[in-house]
Formats: sequence, C-alpha cells, structure tokens
Amino acid sequence: MIVRNIRARCLRWPTVQQRQISSASLKVERSKDNSRFDTMPKKEDLQFGITLSDHMFTAEWNLGTGWEIPRIVPYQDLKISPAASSLHYGLQCFEGMKAYKSLQDPECLRLFRPEKNMARLRSSMERLSMPDDSVNFDPNELTACIKELVRVDSRWIPYGEGYSLYIRPTVIATHKFLGVAPPTSLLLYIITCPVGPYYKKGFDPIRLTADTPFIRAWPGGTGGAKVGGNYGPTMIASNEAAKRGYDQVLWLFGEEKYITEVGAMNIFFFLKNKNGRNELVTAPLERGDILPGVTRGSIIELASTWGEFDVSERNITMFEVQEAAKEGRLIEAFGAGTAAVVSPISCIQFNGVDIEIQATGKITKRIWDELIAIQYGKVDHEWSVKI
Amino acid sequence: MIVRNIRARCLRWPTVQQRQISSASLKVERSKDNSRFDTMPKKEDLQFGITLSDHMFTAEWNLGTGWEIPRIVPYQDLKISPAASSLHYGLQCFEGMKAYKSLQDPECLRLFRPEKNMARLRSSMERLSMPDDSVNFDPNELTACIKELVRVDSRWIPYGEGYSLYIRPTVIATHKFLGVAPPTSLLLYIITCPVGPYYKKGFDPIRLTADTPFIRAWPGGTGGAKVGGNYGPTMIASNEAAKRGYDQVLWLFGEEKYITEVGAMNIFFFLKNKNGRNELVTAPLERGDILPGVTRGSIIELASTWGEFDVSERNITMFEVQEAAKEGRLIEAFGAGTAAVVSPISCIQFNGVDIEIQATGKITKRIWDELIAIQYGKVDHEWSVKI
Repeated sequence: MIVRNIRARCLRWPTVQQRQISSASLKVERSKDNSRFDTMPKKEDLQFGITLSDHMFTAEWNLGTGWEIPRIVPYQDLKISPAASSLHYGLQCFEGMKAYKSLQDPECLRLFRPEKNMARLRSSMERLSMPDDSVNFDPNELTACIKELVRVDSRWIPYGEGYSLYIRPTVIATHKFLGVAPPTSLLLYIITCPVGPYYKKGFDPIRLTADTPFIRAWPGGTGGAKVGGNYGPTMIASNEAAKRGYDQVLWLFGEEKYITEVGAMNIFFFLKNKNGRNELVTAPLERGDILPGVTRGSIIELASTWGEFDVSERNITMFEVQEAAKEGRLIEAFGAGTAAVVSPISCIQFNGVDIEIQATGKITKRIWDELIAIQYGKVDHEWSVKI
Repeated sequence: MIVRNIRARCLRWPTVQQRQISSASLKVERSKDNSRFDTMPKKEDLQFGITLSDHMFTAEWNLGTGWEIPRIVPYQDLKISPAASSLHYGLQCFEGMKAYKSLQDPECLRLFRPEKNMARLRSSMERLSMPDDSVNFDPNELTACIKELVRVDSRWIPYGEGYSLYIRPTVIATHKFLGVAPPTSLLLYIITCPVGPYYKKGFDPIRLTADTPFIRAWPGGTGGAKVGGNYGPTMIASNEAAKRGYDQVLWLFGEEKYITEVGAMNIFFFLKNKNGRNELVTAPLERGDILPGVTRGSIIELASTWGEFDVSERNITMFEVQEAAKEGRLIEAFGAGTAAVVSPISCIQFNGVDIEIQATGKITKRIWDELIAIQYGKVDHEWSVKI
C-alpha cells in the first residue's frame, strides 16, 4: 500500500474558485418508461430500501474544475472504474432523509430539517479527506436540487401517516488510483425510495443485547461521521444477536460500559435519577463515537421546550441503567433515527441478564406524536420545510 | 437505518451445495485493442496504482445459485446499481499481491505465497458478513484463475529487480438494498497494474510521527481484516502529518501507546532488549487491530530460521522504543508490506520529540535481499509459486 504521495497531492489542490453546484443549472431528463411505476408495490407492501423511484440526481466533481452541471436523470446503473477508490478504501459517505406528503394537503410536499443533513454530509466528506473545494458546496443549492428531485418523483411518495419518500444522498470517490490518497474526482448522487411505516400496526418494541465483543466506533475513529465503513462491520454482531433472539445490538464503549448507540440509531433513556429528578438522557457527541442524528437533535430540542424534566447529553453507563432498573427508576428507553423516528426498547441483555423495560412508554409515544405532527404538517413548525 | 430483518435473512441462507469458482470453466475474452499497451509508460516512469493492464477477472456470486462462470475480460468500467451496498455500507474488501518475472528467465512468472492472500480475502469477507457460501470459494481455484490472468497480461509485467505486476483482488457487494444486511449478491474482480520499485535508487528512509489524535483500529473493530473502511479514514491523519513534514503516521493504541502499524504497513523494530539480547519485534495479532501482513509473516519466519537473535510478536510500546533509543539499544526500524517489501524508518516523532534511528540498517537490508531473492527466483524457495 502506498500512502507517500499525499503531501505532493495536497500541494496541488487548487485554491482558485471552482464551479459550484447550482440549482439554476439543474438539467432534468424525465424517464419515458412507466413500467417501474406501474409495478410499484401497494403502499402497504412496501419494504424499506428495495423499491427505487424513477429518477436520480447526479453531480460529478473533479479537481481543478469543480462541480459539473447537476442532473436529474432516469434511475440507472452507475459506470464506475474498478479502480475507483470508493470501492477499495471506503471513500463513501451518505445521508438519510425523507420527503412527506402533508396529511391535510397531499399536494404540499415537505422535508424535515434538510440543512442538518447537508451539514453532516459535508462533515462526513471532510472526515474522508475529500478536498475542501468539493466539501464546500452550497448546502442551500443542493437542498434546492433535492426539492426538484422530490417534485419530479412526487407520485412515488405514498400518502398517509408513516409513509414517505426515503432520500439517500451519497458521495463516492470515482478517482482511479490504487494508492490511498485524497480523491481527485467524486460523484454525488441521490436515489429515493417510497417507504411505509416502520411499524405496520402500533409500536413493536425491540429487544437489545449489549453482550458483544465487537465495538462499533472509537474516539479518533469515524463514529461521528456517516461513512460506509461504520455499517458493514456491525452485521457480524447483529447476526450473532439475532441468533440469540435479540433484535439489535446495544453498542457500549470501554470498561466503563458507556452506552453509545443501538443498531444504527441513537438511544435515549427516560429515568428518575439519583437526585430524584426525571431526566431524558442520551450519549454525548464529544467522544466522537456517536452519530449526531437529526432525530436525536430534534428530540433534545423538543423535549427541552416542554420544560417538564431534565434533558441531558451526558455519559451514561450500562451500570447506571442496570442500577436504575433494579431500583425501579428506569421508566422508558427508545432508539431514535430517520427510518423509525422512535423505536421503543423493551429489553436489554447485559452480562447475560435481561433487563426488562416497560414499553411503549408515554414519553416515547409523545415524542413520536410531536415529531410526526411536524413532519406531516399537522402543525406549523420551522423544522418542516415546504417544497 | 434498518437492521431488523437480518434474522429472517440469515434463516433464508441456503445450505445446499452451490456453484463454486472453477478455473476449468474460466472463459477468456481477449482484448483486441492494443492502444492501452502502446501507451504504457516506460518502466522507469511507472507510478504505483495508475496504469492498469489490459484484462480483468470477474466472477459474480448470487445467493441461492452460487458463483457464476469466472471470466477474464478486457479491462472495463463496472456497471453497479447506485443502491449497491458496497457503495453505502463499506461492504468491500481486497488483497494486494504481485506477479514477478524471474530474473534468470523472464518467461518464468511467479507469485509470492498466494495462498496467504486467498485465506485473508476469505477472512475479510467473513468479517463483513458475506454469506458463508460465498466465503467458502476454493482458494486453489481462484489462485489458478489469477495465474491465468497473469499469463494473459504477462507482457504488462516489467522485467527487472523491483518491477512486478501488482494484483488487486477485490470483493464488493452488488446487493441493491438500502437496509444494512448480509449481501445476497457479490462481485469478485481482479485488476492488475505494472509497478516499478518503491525506491527508484537505493532506500529512501521514511520519517514517522506518532503524534495524532486519530486511531486506525481497535479491538472488536476491523483492523485485522483488509476492508475498505480501514483506509480512507486514515488520510486525515496522514495529510496532517505531511503538513508537519513527516512521511507517514505511526499508529499507536491505548494509554499504553502500543505500537500497531505504520501508514498501511506492519512495523518491525530491531533492538537490544533489557536482557541484553538482540530482538526483532513486531506487534502481535491477538488484539485484532493489526493486519496479518504476508510480508510481516514471511519476515518472522525468515528471521527465525537465521537463529541469530530473538524474533518476537509481542506488545511493544512507544515508551519502550523511546527508552531503547535513549539508551542506545534501538538498532533499526522498518515498515513491511507488499508494495515496498521493507521500508526503513529514520525518525519517529513522539510527544513532540523526534527519535532519530540509523537507516538503512543491516537487518533491514538483509531481509530485503532475501525476500527479493525468493520473489524473483534467484533462489529456489517454496514461497515462490511458478505460474
């Protein structure tokens, strides 16, 4: 493996103004093929991540010239060099977001806090040493392109509470080079897929195991960025958990058994703490081993406005959760992420013992209700951005 | 993110015998285009990883049917679904190996310990939860296919000591699914590129810095497997090191400052230890945060046969190296990997202080000489496999 020529490459990065992503120059080529839409499953039968809608967004970036003209084109395979560094060195990052049809007016399409996804995408690109010139795209312009993509495929958004169009912005290095080096070419593409509610009827609480020798992320690693290498390697632990009858893995860190994430979601505990105060707790971002989830951030902000209990981003260990459960102070626990919104937790296995948790609790349900109301435009809220 | 349906998927994995990779069924489609070969740089001008030879190997794997017919085809772009999980979740792993022309007889082509690369590729696939049925390909059959690929592109192997054809077997998930799940389809492909000596004239020792807040790998992570996610994230530290005038990063682990790897190579120290014995030391594999390098393993075996000093795979901390240097007991240090073979180290920055090391030392040079003699067939050795 060669990593020596990075210095030379760094110096070659241009500092002049490069072409930017501009929604005004967006070219749209509409699909003439209705066959994919005609065979779209009934909305009740949709499975997450399988059915892809008719169009995709693409924008190429090249060192020296910047971003090429952004395009919306019919969904199609990518042509990628077998030497592209996205296929060898994990030079890939992505986002997960959703577009919704307002419940009161299906013509009114909405996004949820898209600026948060744009900021995180840039931060993930930076973590992967994608050149500054590519990272510094204008987030508002890319959001405007996403809005157009959603408009073009609006018939693919199923109507109804819990239904949405899942949006997957992705950045991959297309640089043909078998050395490990900052990429000189990238492809930013966005695919979308119609999705149904995570829970078909009511909540279906998940059972977790914290008993795994595998570790999702580490300080100084990439746990705080949404990069490909964080995901594939977790399956070995998930599969083993599944064999033992658990739905997902609760990822701990260190001898202190700090709680970090669950599966691919952030995690919250609602408990009465040692001081007798009710507290909603989630793991802090400072260690860099936790994804700064948009749903996570929204729950913290939302619950803080209620002013009914403490809301904390702080270290919480499995020992604290165990003790709280033993003393009857653990009230609720739930995962939080774009796909499921909130995911009630009914059990955590730790050191071979199942800690049972009442699910679905009132706070979990209330957070779900308030987020859904915002996302589907049942209430007016600045987080919901009309398209 | 959805990781719930893994259990159902696991149960669906077939246990019946699937089609295997078979070199007897290998189909070869030769390129009719000589233009790429005609514009191949002079061997002295070759840069690592840029010039790709005329042909590539491909074999698809699908759940339920197994491996499709293996093919050697003209080098070409891949067609990949934008939803392929190799582009989102780091479901990609690779190998690095080389084919050599014997110095005495350029018609006699050689590989170096290919069975080691095949075993490691399988182990990387397993770490990424690629299904058992795909992982269990016959390593001898894939090696036979690699030999044929090398034969077909033998004119691309530059002749001379230090010259070779770098071979990059790669496995990517082609499964079109935005959930995190064991892939139901894979592509195994192999590209090759002619490469020159890492050092154009004599050794050019490298200067390292151990002062980085970033971590390459950790126990319970993927540091022991050759997966994409190990590489891209290291550049942020390499780039910062380069800006400060160092060639590569020495990756440490934990408060003990265990020495793990350098850049993307294993690392060796030759020192007089506290007991007054000469010792060649490299980091152990047990923690799972170090790549089991083929060159690393070969050096351990080779130096052990000399019987002239202790050869140890053991924990060695930066503090021990610092102390040995201070007491005049640190004799040599070098990196080891397929690309450079050995890479002498002349300096390690630690806690802001440069530890200078005599380079290139006698042991480093002797290991280079003996490995090169084996790889290029100057001596007969079982590690060198004739094609």
